[in-house]
Amino acid sequence: MTTMELTKTSMHDLSAGTFVPMLRSLLQIFDKAIAQAAEKKIDLAALPEARLAPDMYPLTRQVQIACDAAKSATARLMGAEPPRHEDNEKTVDDLKARITKVIAYVESAPVKAFDGAAERTVLFPLIETLVFESNGFEYVRDWALPNFYFHVVTAYDILRHNGVDIGKRDYLHHAAGAHIHPGN
Amino acid sequence: MTTMELTKTSMHDLSAGTFVPMLRSLLQIFDKAIAQAAEKKIDLAALPEARLAPDMYPLTRQVQIACDAAKSATARLMGAEPPRHEDNEKTVDDLKARITKVIAYVESAPVKAFDGAAERTVLFPLIETLVFESNGFEYVRDWALPNFYFHVVTAYDILRHNGVDIGKRDYLHHAAGAHIHPGN
Repeated sequence: MTTMELTKTSMHDLSAGTFVPMLRSLLQIFDKAIAQAAEKKIDLAALPEARLAPDMYPLTRQVQIACDAAKSATARLMGAEPPRHEDNEKTVDDLKARITKVIAYVESAPVKAFDGAAERTVLFPLIETLVFESNGFEYVRDWALPNFYFHVVTAYDILRHNGVDIGKRDYLHHAAGAHIHPGN
Repeated sequence: MTTMELTKTSMHDLSAGTFVPMLRSLLQIFDKAIAQAAEKKIDLAALPEARLAPDMYPLTRQVQIACDAAKSATARLMGAEPPRHEDNEKTVDDLKARITKVIAYVESAPVKAFDGAAERTVLFPLIETLVFESNGFEYVRDWALPNFYFHVVTAYDILRHNGVDIGKRDYLHHAAGAHIHPGN
């Protein structure tokens, strides 16, 4: 791979290459919760509203925001409008469907559309009259990734706190598959 | 900034540019915990051993691993040996000192030492006979960053779960300072 190819594809590699495998890990984590529900006497219906503090968002909102972080970053880096997804999930299966929808959107983004995205200005409104403004690279590093990870990890922590038997291996599932092998 | 300059500095920008501001945010979050201890009747001495599940690492270990993730990634990308830091923290002040030490190490890493780091092979032993092996970019994206964020966010979640009054603004403090301003 030449220097130029690396630069051209790096914003896609960095964003989609983070979002898709981490969202797949989250799907598998939910599958574990479903599989353990009977045996560990976990009430699946209680999980979407579970939270770590009374004034913190419940699991459902954590998953919705993680999904929106991936969706918005993908769209903004391409200079496109993100698809609208209504926040109406009620069950663990609904949350899985939301994640699956976002994976499909991120995977549908053409690599070519990320050309020049590192230097492109990303600007969007926040609360009140505040706006976020930076180049694409700093937007991903300082906003999209920390936001995305915040909500993915908090979703994990809520499930773990509620007795779902998951570990770092489930969270880093993709890395294990791609980069870990027996040594000599 | 030319294409070539971006490529040359990108692994330093991506790694140190994530670790330093996020660790600074974590320091500020601990300062908030200290400031609130008296007024909110939080026993500071109880925090280092606090955890979200009986079989999950307590706050102290979360901070130690977050620090080690930043330290190891910095060293591996340069092809250097990371400094050894003993895991002997007992208090919130000890944890702050550990974080400060790692910030100083990451900040001391010369940008020049990251030249070619995206393509350089990163290989290190894991448990048993397993090894991790990938290029530097995929190592950062698939291992260093998700690991780092996992432990930073879980530290945040433990503090939040234990009544410390912090929010997303504290976690994203650096982004707010650098990229958020009043719109027109």
